[in-house]
Amino acid sequence: MDNCVFCKIGSHNQTADLVFENEELYVVHDIMPKAPVHFLVIPKQHLESINHLAEDKADLVGRMILLAKDQAALHGIGSTGYKLVFNVGKDGGQVIPHLHLHVLGGKQMPE
Amino acid sequence: MDNCVFCKIGSHNQTADLVFENEELYVVHDIMPKAPVHFLVIPKQHLESINHLAEDKADLVGRMILLAKDQAALHGIGSTGYKLVFNVGKDGGQVIPHLHLHVLGGKQMPE
Repeated sequence: MDNCVFCKIGSHNQTADLVFENEELYVVHDIMPKAPVHFLVIPKQHLESINHLAEDKADLVGRMILLAKDQAALHGIGSTGYKLVFNVGKDGGQVIPHLHLHVLGGKQMPE
Repeated sequence: MDNCVFCKIGSHNQTADLVFENEELYVVHDIMPKAPVHFLVIPKQHLESINHLAEDKADLVGRMILLAKDQAALHGIGSTGYKLVFNVGKDGGQVIPHLHLHVLGGKQMPE
């Protein structure tokens, strides 16, 4: 997707300070953090949102969650706790229409 | 787990109004809803949290997400949008130590 910022970052056509990267996924800090620790796990492939996820992508989302767990531990919030959040569509507060998983921690958050 | 409410519901040893059920997962409304639509997707197998997820459970979590997407559509919030949230541990606001995915919608939620 030519005009998608997360596609550009994932294909190294836009500079970003990547925390982690493999062939399928990458991790960046949120540029408007809502918690002391706030990073995003993003697939390089363009998928608009969870609503656009085909049945055969269950394992991709699972690997996003597992990477989030591993990165939470590396960011020092594994044992204290964190939230994993997918915002989907307008009511869900999704801003960028490329699938991404928020990982938030470093403070007590509500239920 | 004998004293786990989500295990009891999943094994039909405690009454609950199940929205959906298959061999692996079930769906119930949250008894303290934080949005007009608020339900939970829960595996019948006892796993404490995302922090306790083994590598070979990526597909289970993926199926939880896909079921959440399908149930969001059935609850009328597929096109308007929703949030999917895993609370992990104390800072994450996790109350019941059995893995569950919150699905929230029916109102505009923040980013």
